[in-house]
Amino acid sequence: MKRRIGVVGFRGYSGSELVRLLKKHPGVEVILVEHRLDSTTHPSDLEIGDLKTLPAEPSQLAREGVELVFLATPHEASMELAPGLLEAGLRVIDLSGAFRLDPPVFERWYKMKHLAPGLQRQAVYGLPEFCRTQIAGARFVANPGCYPTAASLAIKPLVEAGVIDRTAGIICDAKSGVSGAGRKPSLRTAFCEVNENFSAYAVFEHRHVPEILMNCRLEEQELSFIAQLLPVNRGILETIYLRLKPGVDGEQLRAIYQSRYGDEPFIRIYPIGQYPDLRAVQFTNFCDIGIASQPDAGRALIIAAIDNLVKGAAGQAIQNMNLMLGFSETEALL
Amino acid sequence: MKRRIGVVGFRGYSGSELVRLLKKHPGVEVILVEHRLDSTTHPSDLEIGDLKTLPAEPSQLAREGVELVFLATPHEASMELAPGLLEAGLRVIDLSGAFRLDPPVFERWYKMKHLAPGLQRQAVYGLPEFCRTQIAGARFVANPGCYPTAASLAIKPLVEAGVIDRTAGIICDAKSGVSGAGRKPSLRTAFCEVNENFSAYAVFEHRHVPEILMNCRLEEQELSFIAQLLPVNRGILETIYLRLKPGVDGEQLRAIYQSRYGDEPFIRIYPIGQYPDLRAVQFTNFCDIGIASQPDAGRALIIAAIDNLVKGAAGQAIQNMNLMLGFSETEALL
Amino acid sequence: MKRRIGVVGFRGYSGSELVRLLKKHPGVEVILVEHRLDSTTHPSDLEIGDLKTLPAEPSQLAREGVELVFLATPHEASMELAPGLLEAGLRVIDLSGAFRLDPPVFERWYKMKHLAPGLQRQAVYGLPEFCRTQIAGARFVANPGCYPTAASLAIKPLVEAGVIDRTAGIICDAKSGVSGAGRKPSLRTAFCEVNENFSAYAVFEHRHVPEILMNCRLEEQELSFIAQLLPVNRGILETIYLRLKPGVDGEQLRAIYQSRYGDEPFIRIYPIGQYPDLRAVQFTNFCDIGIASQPDAGRALIIAAIDNLVKGAAGQAIQNMNLMLGFSETEALL
Amino acid sequence: MKRRIGVVGFRGYSGSELVRLLKKHPGVEVILVEHRLDSTTHPSDLEIGDLKTLPAEPSQLAREGVELVFLATPHEASMELAPGLLEAGLRVIDLSGAFRLDPPVFERWYKMKHLAPGLQRQAVYGLPEFCRTQIAGARFVANPGCYPTAASLAIKPLVEAGVIDRTAGIICDAKSGVSGAGRKPSLRTAFCEVNENFSAYAVFEHRHVPEILMNCRLEEQELSFIAQLLPVNRGILETIYLRLKPGVDGEQLRAIYQSRYGDEPFIRIYPIGQYPDLRAVQFTNFCDIGIASQPDAGRALIIAAIDNLVKGAAGQAIQNMNLMLGFSETEALL
Repeated sequence: MKRRIGVVGFRGYSGSELVRLLKKHPGVEVILVEHRLDSTTHPSDLEIGDLKTLPAEPSQLAREGVELVFLATPHEASMELAPGLLEAGLRVIDLSGAFRLDPPVFERWYKMKHLAPGLQRQAVYGLPEFCRTQIAGARFVANPGCYPTAASLAIKPLVEAGVIDRTAGIICDAKSGVSGAGRKPSLRTAFCEVNENFSAYAVFEHRHVPEILMNCRLEEQELSFIAQLLPVNRGILETIYLRLKPGVDGEQLRAIYQSRYGDEPFIRIYPIGQYPDLRAVQFTNFCDIGIASQPDAGRALIIAAIDNLVKGAAGQAIQNMNLMLGFSETEALL
Repeated sequence: MKRRIGVVGFRGYSGSELVRLLKKHPGVEVILVEHRLDSTTHPSDLEIGDLKTLPAEPSQLAREGVELVFLATPHEASMELAPGLLEAGLRVIDLSGAFRLDPPVFERWYKMKHLAPGLQRQAVYGLPEFCRTQIAGARFVANPGCYPTAASLAIKPLVEAGVIDRTAGIICDAKSGVSGAGRKPSLRTAFCEVNENFSAYAVFEHRHVPEILMNCRLEEQELSFIAQLLPVNRGILETIYLRLKPGVDGEQLRAIYQSRYGDEPFIRIYPIGQYPDLRAVQFTNFCDIGIASQPDAGRALIIAAIDNLVKGAAGQAIQNMNLMLGFSETEALL
Repeated sequence: MKRRIGVVGFRGYSGSELVRLLKKHPGVEVILVEHRLDSTTHPSDLEIGDLKTLPAEPSQLAREGVELVFLATPHEASMELAPGLLEAGLRVIDLSGAFRLDPPVFERWYKMKHLAPGLQRQAVYGLPEFCRTQIAGARFVANPGCYPTAASLAIKPLVEAGVIDRTAGIICDAKSGVSGAGRKPSLRTAFCEVNENFSAYAVFEHRHVPEILMNCRLEEQELSFIAQLLPVNRGILETIYLRLKPGVDGEQLRAIYQSRYGDEPFIRIYPIGQYPDLRAVQFTNFCDIGIASQPDAGRALIIAAIDNLVKGAAGQAIQNMNLMLGFSETEALL
Repeated sequence: MKRRIGVVGFRGYSGSELVRLLKKHPGVEVILVEHRLDSTTHPSDLEIGDLKTLPAEPSQLAREGVELVFLATPHEASMELAPGLLEAGLRVIDLSGAFRLDPPVFERWYKMKHLAPGLQRQAVYGLPEFCRTQIAGARFVANPGCYPTAASLAIKPLVEAGVIDRTAGIICDAKSGVSGAGRKPSLRTAFCEVNENFSAYAVFEHRHVPEILMNCRLEEQELSFIAQLLPVNRGILETIYLRLKPGVDGEQLRAIYQSRYGDEPFIRIYPIGQYPDLRAVQFTNFCDIGIASQPDAGRALIIAAIDNLVKGAAGQAIQNMNLMLGFSETEALL
């Protein structure tokens, strides 16, 4: 029998990607959970029209047999909805930034008050490659941000292996497609402002910085992170510059990745001299990693690419759901 | 001495295009006229920062020696601003749809009440290729819409020459870049909704229909017009299908255009078998026209292309200003 | 046991789409069939690297148990390869234009000599909505062209129902994404020539015209067809203008479509006043159809949209394979 | 009397941009110089059709009174053409990479033999902000590469001021629109390969590296440079990461730029916290520079943007011509 899974925010880009992917999952039935903020109509209404819809009412969802709810909602809505859903006995995977960080860190970077600080400690951070066991046993998962997913998967193994000269700083020059900014209309994401353009934003102060620091156990001054807006719908590519400790070369970096990720179903390490582009990962749950080294300079470049709506949001959330509900981890994702 | 020209709505796409073009005009000084609806900042602030700014106060503008004001504003704002400016003795060129049509026709198609119906009769329709003399003597010009500019320039000479079988209907399949929809953020013009997409809108009920009918003296049932949104910033291309009267061929259509437009500085007629694309007209004030005929079928295709922000808005407005103020008609436009 | 299926031309856009889709088909094993014209490397090498590769040698393919071969090749290569494959007992689905038309018609429109004219009579035209039974029993299928698929599905039911005034002509204004032009580099499909542009090509003389005429049983002078290049990767949208016989309205057209296509898994008819866009069909095998009527003018507009690489090529080819091999018709396509 | 100026390679992107800009120059008459490599037709034929055309024959050009020739040609053609033109007494501005570097450096990075090594010493490097006097007296100018123009203008003043800790390395993460790759069709620049994509290329080994090193007097190991392909037609944006010497902050960097570039007509320094995007510089000859500092980390980010076809090629070449022929430096460029 199929298990019932709810999606709040199914009209946004991450939410409709969740619905698109979950419809291919043989083990679940998707329930659209209506919330008062779902005001806009969506081009995919044609497809989602035949799915069951329920209001975002925890007790009713529980009565209807919904086991797990995805919150593809703004931070504020997630902080408002998560407590009731958990209390009603449902599992929750939150795709917003509300429960990833310690509340004081959250409040500093997101410049808003946390509405459920006590609950944050219960949230398991949902990066399967590093937290698989805890996720499998979790009732509440904070799904990682898109930029931190690619950055952490690229940086963390090298930090842990001790091959980086952290005093020289780690530079992450990140570029993202526009769907990462969500579906709410704004001048910044209007067609004529983005098309034929390319621009940096949130220079050194992006909300995703503390998440990368937390994951890779870096100090703030060790990371320089900037975000840039690409005129494409989906995809993130990050170029990460590092100084290597003496004697370390590109092949060693590749060996570290292969040792760390050899069994991972969604990480692909490229041969030296080949680099991922957005095309390689769009519409997939893969994180692709390429490596270049500049031996005389003692520096290396890591290029990491993901689809911001899949491995950076909906796909990773389903990967987490698969772990939590005992499905095969790759179900609906390969 | 340079003559002072004001631009209201200079932060919108048409308005900033006006400023960009007027800055190259040796005979005028551009004054930015602030209006309460100018809330958004614009990427070109860097450029426009050194221009003189005045409030949209008719008497003050008159005192400061402003001779003519462009209204690159929504219909409502134009209806509100035009009367006072004209009364204060300024010339006005309105780029909105407020004064192009008889008020009852306007009210039917724009679904809003006309706020200055008496004034409409004073407005000269600003299509120089057909109303040059009246424009030269006008104090108030209603600048044509973007779609009607291309459609009328393509259709009107053929209707006047009597070579079209109007009973078969004239079909205008129009495509426009996104800047034609203005700068106000909306879901419809958000990057991820337009990019990698193409869609029809306002099928058979676009507000520009009555303007084409008026210009070409067609009955409503003689024209089928649809608008479509192209994933480009600027440019309009219209494919217009006509049935020809017996014995008429493509070369005759070309001869009609050449006879009608031979001396026009901004109309280019292509040889049979060559067709304009958007590239040919972007950032120019040209209207390019290509002709194809299908002799056995007795049908012809006219392809007309303009830049919606130049010949379809700001450029044509400056062409009108040049006529009204006695400058060379092509000043700042070639 | 999985059945072995070969793909020739797997490095082109249609061929790699075939591989992408077939990998999700539970009943088949994909074999990459190398041909001398496969010179370019492909971004998806990462994915296809683990598939078995064989040379385009009919007897060897037969020995290896390959049952059916897709030819995602240029016309010339298909004419060269098809005879040997069929002789060796393999089934063939040809995605080129080589076997869709009577050889004299082919030679006129494609301006090349037919190399296997005798074989053409054996080819079943692969439009399942109209030729399902013959396809199911076929050993050789000529997969339809992309433009004719959308045009024929939109026009044919109305012609058959006798509701169109054919003397007024049927106008098909077609727009396609760039992948329809194939993967061979050319100036016409270079990024800077297509991006921020829109252009007509093959006006009234596109090779797909005779295929539409054949499918819809129209005379040449009854159809005006032009193709236009959209700055998007994939998708076709056709706006089709028709004069209706007296008394026919949009709802009747809709009823005709629903009666004809009510059970079709891949045709979606929209309510009057709603129209498909490219987004609705990209990466799907659907053909979406919207209807508008202009009652006073006695005209109607049909908007048909498909993904040129799926329903217009690889998806429809797999639909045909499913019929030929006894799989569920929608396998790997929903 | 207008002075005659020739353009070889006028059908390429840089060459047609030269023609577009020179046509607005009141002091020159443009002559199209035909060369055997000009095989492709160009969309702007309509515009350039009325210009005088001459063959690339030095003595004939001299007899016709051509004073200066722009070579918007591949490296090989420039090496072949420059000697004869100079010998015939014409001035030459070469936009290729053939004469910017010492021949041995050229041969190492361009992997081709230099055909006129003796001539290279006569070429003045054409970066006006640093070589204005020499350019004014030059008969032969090597116009800078697009990436090095932006990088050198951003980096050189800081290196000269001694505020960078060069031991930490200078990282230049560069992104370019597709016109930078030229007009010759290739798979890499085909629409479907670039659109909706973003990719790195020539990682650490781009031909423009030695030019940046030469201009900024850096050692090879002090610079990490990568190039990336943006899905836009024109524009370069470079994000440059530097470690600052202790006590240096962003305001000091800004002061250095303002002191160095205060009188430069084509350099715009942004206030701290504001950054250029491509839109700000497209179709202009400006190089815009923004500055961000990360005080705790001791690092700074410089964002430099140019239009690769204007300040990165044709515009800068005309700036050089203006200097060489005694015109106002900004003629046709503001």
